[in-house]
Amino acid sequence: MSIHPSSIISEKAIIGKNVTIGPFTVIYDNVSIGDNVRIDGFCELGVENDLSEGKTLEIGRNSHIRSHSIFYEGSSFGDGLVTGHRVTVREKTFAGLNFQIGTLTDIQGCCQIGDYVRLHSNVHVGQQSNIGDFVWIFPYVVLTNDPHPPSNILKGVTVEEFSVIATMSVILPGVKIGSGCLISAHSSVNKDTEADMLYSGSPARKVCPTKKIKLQNGSKNSAYPWINHFKRGYPKEIVAGWNYEK
Amino acid sequence: MSIHPSSIISEKAIIGKNVTIGPFTVIYDNVSIGDNVRIDGFCELGVENDLSEGKTLEIGRNSHIRSHSIFYEGSSFGDGLVTGHRVTVREKTFAGLNFQIGTLTDIQGCCQIGDYVRLHSNVHVGQQSNIGDFVWIFPYVVLTNDPHPPSNILKGVTVEEFSVIATMSVILPGVKIGSGCLISAHSSVNKDTEADMLYSGSPARKVCPTKKIKLQNGSKNSAYPWINHFKRGYPKEIVAGWNYEK
Amino acid sequence: MSIHPSSIISEKAIIGKNVTIGPFTVIYDNVSIGDNVRIDGFCELGVENDLSEGKTLEIGRNSHIRSHSIFYEGSSFGDGLVTGHRVTVREKTFAGLNFQIGTLTDIQGCCQIGDYVRLHSNVHVGQQSNIGDFVWIFPYVVLTNDPHPPSNILKGVTVEEFSVIATMSVILPGVKIGSGCLISAHSSVNKDTEADMLYSGSPARKVCPTKKIKLQNGSKNSAYPWINHFKRGYPKEIVAGWNYEK
Repeated sequence: MSIHPSSIISEKAIIGKNVTIGPFTVIYDNVSIGDNVRIDGFCELGVENDLSEGKTLEIGRNSHIRSHSIFYEGSSFGDGLVTGHRVTVREKTFAGLNFQIGTLTDIQGCCQIGDYVRLHSNVHVGQQSNIGDFVWIFPYVVLTNDPHPPSNILKGVTVEEFSVIATMSVILPGVKIGSGCLISAHSSVNKDTEADMLYSGSPARKVCPTKKIKLQNGSKNSAYPWINHFKRGYPKEIVAGWNYEK
Repeated sequence: MSIHPSSIISEKAIIGKNVTIGPFTVIYDNVSIGDNVRIDGFCELGVENDLSEGKTLEIGRNSHIRSHSIFYEGSSFGDGLVTGHRVTVREKTFAGLNFQIGTLTDIQGCCQIGDYVRLHSNVHVGQQSNIGDFVWIFPYVVLTNDPHPPSNILKGVTVEEFSVIATMSVILPGVKIGSGCLISAHSSVNKDTEADMLYSGSPARKVCPTKKIKLQNGSKNSAYPWINHFKRGYPKEIVAGWNYEK
Repeated sequence: MSIHPSSIISEKAIIGKNVTIGPFTVIYDNVSIGDNVRIDGFCELGVENDLSEGKTLEIGRNSHIRSHSIFYEGSSFGDGLVTGHRVTVREKTFAGLNFQIGTLTDIQGCCQIGDYVRLHSNVHVGQQSNIGDFVWIFPYVVLTNDPHPPSNILKGVTVEEFSVIATMSVILPGVKIGSGCLISAHSSVNKDTEADMLYSGSPARKVCPTKKIKLQNGSKNSAYPWINHFKRGYPKEIVAGWNYEK
């Protein structure tokens, strides 16, 4: 237990065992933090908000929240959450295990996020997004939700398991990205995509099955499904469960 | 009046009645804050800057500045300013009533902003921008100003009243977006646009009058002008003044 | 010497003469700051990180780091570093003289940056990037590195001297931008570029030599090479060394 003396922690907050809290961090009333969590400096956890309906911010065990990050009350995260710096996460964000959120990423709340999802830096997740297990989203991607802004109609984006959305792509409202897809950089996707296909362009067109993309390492192996060659950071038992042969 | 004891407030700053200031916020000398304003934690107001020419930062009444935001001296905001987190606003930004600035938005200063303008998250407003009343700008939009960077020639963007610029669009230097336009997501606009038209693409082309876009709510109503169906957050007397029949 | 009493400075950090440190700034152990440096509030310098291999963060003389910025240990910067607000710079970033980093820019580490490089707001520099002297990169540009994400193969981007990358462009993995190029706004570059050419589009195509672009100031002069008309902020002796006639 190492709580920096300059931090400000509500007596009402529930703090687990072996929690580290950095300088100038503020923890408000309505927060529950699991064991073995590290929260770095300049963070705010449990920001009050009418839309949270009084629900608690729950941070799972063995998490690490890097400095200058802001989490509202009314969201929950499974064990093993890891963030970069300056992430902003609003209310009613429900995420599974081992969620990774990159620096500057902005999650607007009211969204469902599976297990082992990895958002890189500066991703914008609109309300009503639904992100499946093992999804990767790269920098400056925006998941939108309003089909004719501004309006009161929200149609969130769905990204199915194992899909990858590359840098600076926009996914338009209500679109479903099928499982195992790759959306190439700088694309704009305005229709649902078929599983295990590469899409590219603005508007995005289907290019080919992802398995036709070769690894640039001198082998003749396919780069997709990526789980065949990329296992860094996933527990052995998870990797053993991946039998995604195509 | 609720001033957090960890905040640092210059004795020279003018603070109105019933102002709330959060933890670790710094208010410098050259600041004037109206009544009933709430400033959350980790903010800096009135950052000194030679280009401000000694002018005061003026925040209107009934405003709410969320945490980690930075405002320079030498700008002014009408009543009802509302910000997200981590906004950065430089000197000589002059905004009207009820300006809303989303999380991470970066206003470079030297710009004019009308009444009831709404910038969503992560908008970049270049110097010399001129934004009319009731404009909406969505995430990751950039308003540019330099026709051949780097140079000493700045040609700001003009966005006329009631226009909407969707996610991840770039407006090129000196372009005027006519009133009531919709610029669709992921567009790049290199010419002035006609009023009340939809533009799309990179470079953006005129597609059709915006009134041809139907609401996706089962009705056969037009989605534009948006004021015909979207009134959330605007005072009654303002809505009563909208007689924008087309 | 002006150290704000609310700042937290490790006794192990090496602080030069005439250094100013703002409110709520934290300086960790493994930091060396040159003379005449100004560090504003809410910064973190020398964030510990296993990948830094114990190397020091070195900040050259006459630098100015604006508020809410984060620098990891294990990077070094020549004299005259100037940053905007909220910049994030990770380990093994090696930069030359007079580096300028705009607000919100995110440097992922493991990169080489020359002298007099200027990154505007919200630029994302991926690992393995190599940026030459006098390069300009504008807002929302992303330098990528993974040819088939996610993978363990990183191919950084090279940007040669005097090149300019305009707003919201993506440079794809392993691409080399030749010296003196202009990449126009909202482009996506997937191949190496020839020197002194304008490229535009997604994917980007060669348009013409940059010298055919005219200055929009009523003269008939070329806008490129930009050093023929833009000298603001460069020392006289540097400008005298530019004999870039084409």
